[in-house]
Amino acid sequence: MAKRPTIHDVAAVAGVSRGTVSRVLNDDRYVSPAAHAAVRRAIAEIGYIVNRNARSLVTQRTGSIVMVLSEPHEKLFEDPNYSVTIRTAVRRLADRDMSLVMMVAGDDGDRDRVIRYVRGGHADGVFLLSTHAGDRMVDALVDIAIPAVALGAVIGRESVIPHAAADDREGARQMTRHLIEAGRKKIATITGPMDTPGGIQRLEGFADVLGRKASRKLIEHGDWTRLSGESGMARLLERTPDLDAVFVASDLMAAGALATLRAAGRRVPDDVAVGGFDDSSVALSTHPPLTTIRQPLADVAEETVRLLLALIDGAEHVESVILPTRLIVRESA
Amino acid sequence: MAKRPTIHDVAAVAGVSRGTVSRVLNDDRYVSPAAHAAVRRAIAEIGYIVNRNARSLVTQRTGSIVMVLSEPHEKLFEDPNYSVTIRTAVRRLADRDMSLVMMVAGDDGDRDRVIRYVRGGHADGVFLLSTHAGDRMVDALVDIAIPAVALGAVIGRESVIPHAAADDREGARQMTRHLIEAGRKKIATITGPMDTPGGIQRLEGFADVLGRKASRKLIEHGDWTRLSGESGMARLLERTPDLDAVFVASDLMAAGALATLRAAGRRVPDDVAVGGFDDSSVALSTHPPLTTIRQPLADVAEETVRLLLALIDGAEHVESVILPTRLIVRESA
Repeated sequence: MAKRPTIHDVAAVAGVSRGTVSRVLNDDRYVSPAAHAAVRRAIAEIGYIVNRNARSLVTQRTGSIVMVLSEPHEKLFEDPNYSVTIRTAVRRLADRDMSLVMMVAGDDGDRDRVIRYVRGGHADGVFLLSTHAGDRMVDALVDIAIPAVALGAVIGRESVIPHAAADDREGARQMTRHLIEAGRKKIATITGPMDTPGGIQRLEGFADVLGRKASRKLIEHGDWTRLSGESGMARLLERTPDLDAVFVASDLMAAGALATLRAAGRRVPDDVAVGGFDDSSVALSTHPPLTTIRQPLADVAEETVRLLLALIDGAEHVESVILPTRLIVRESA
Repeated sequence: MAKRPTIHDVAAVAGVSRGTVSRVLNDDRYVSPAAHAAVRRAIAEIGYIVNRNARSLVTQRTGSIVMVLSEPHEKLFEDPNYSVTIRTAVRRLADRDMSLVMMVAGDDGDRDRVIRYVRGGHADGVFLLSTHAGDRMVDALVDIAIPAVALGAVIGRESVIPHAAADDREGARQMTRHLIEAGRKKIATITGPMDTPGGIQRLEGFADVLGRKASRKLIEHGDWTRLSGESGMARLLERTPDLDAVFVASDLMAAGALATLRAAGRRVPDDVAVGGFDDSSVALSTHPPLTTIRQPLADVAEETVRLLLALIDGAEHVESVILPTRLIVRESA
């Protein structure tokens, strides 16, 4: 196995001291132009790569961001929203020649290891995804004082963790109004988890429009998985067989709801109109294609990265960003 | 923002020198038991966390493994196989209190950043996933001499990168034999990419059984995506309208092929039998449910982790592992 060149090798080839090499690597201006050039030549010649571990002790920069995915292991990456978010973040960071590394935070052990990784100085910033309310990991990150942002608000920590998000509440209002305007009389909903902003705010938007008609028996809670859309729809049908529409808070859960309706012999949209949320790739692969709310997820991910880079670059404070949603009418409602 | 305790703070509280603290942290035996105890007490008292950046300069251990996902950004995580693999690796590493970090290697810039991350000493080992033949990143990793393994062979580098995999070739033979035994006369195939072991070996298994009947016009190449299954099936139908079976080298591509067959008015399995490969969650969500080849992906991922940990623990050499596949008969063939 080849031994990799060290800073000693660079110093020997350049004919300077190790300290001089180190000062060049750290952009210290107290180095003569001649020494600077000699070190740069030696680095190129022997193929020396800066050991960022050593370097970060001085500069505190690693060139990488850690994205923390707070979902139970079972649900990982089922929703195509993950792929869009990760792809966008990888590309925006690549523009700065920075890396995205991802860690799963599905249980307490995972969360402890995320904290250890961050404390160990392996990342310049943290991008939180799908964080649930009450997560102690968030408080630990705040204590470490590393730049941290979230895609979607971290409930209860909005003032310390800046975020970018879609306007979930207004999006839910748009869909609920659309169902009413289509003449639907008994409209149910399947929500996301009630410790996530998408879960809470999409239910609030639904209730904003329906008022007292949004009775408890028309509400079921899902966990963003397709399976929870299937079972939520089954419970709604059992309790309220005469419902004629359902607003499902994610396209993936809506795909599950469609499967249940088909198995129950209900025609969509004739018997039951189904409205989704996301406009992810799922919306086009269902039968019939989903009428849904488009959230500009790539833009939201870009804004989240932008906020994080601003903090890393030294901004004292950044403002959270909310982007508008839009109704996309296809065939299911 | 709270300042985090440093090694200086530990030394001050313990009443010893920084050097002594450092020797304790690095398990140096030239430390008196009394000093050792004082340092441990001080660490617990002030909540000091070892800076693994600094520590790894001495011990060369970071406590984390980097999983490198070699897929174009567009295809990321579409296949549920990713989720199973990542979940399994996270759990097996957690048993050793080690972290999994993931990096995407979708283009040359990404690959350079992976190399930089590894050279920077941020990981103790590398777990390669979906690596394609001819990837220069693999050679760079070999040069760095970091422990590295792959799930699925790295074509052309089998002797330097140990791997675990399913028996792709025998699995393809099992499915092809099943289609013949069901009385099918004109059997086509949609393969994976021909620079991946799953692409090559599943085609070889198909050809092993069909011999001269596996003519070029019955073969289409996909790229593992659902979309490539759709378009591959369309090209096969156009060229060979009287085909009565197709072996599709992944369940996700098979789901795409089913959509094309439905749109073309072909009944499955009456007109055309469809066999998949993977037995992933996709196989149960299609209409009709897929007859497929089960590859024991969780076991393959476990074995891959086991090989990597053995190398990290100092094994000079580990043997690659091939696990058996099994035919699962459902409704599509």
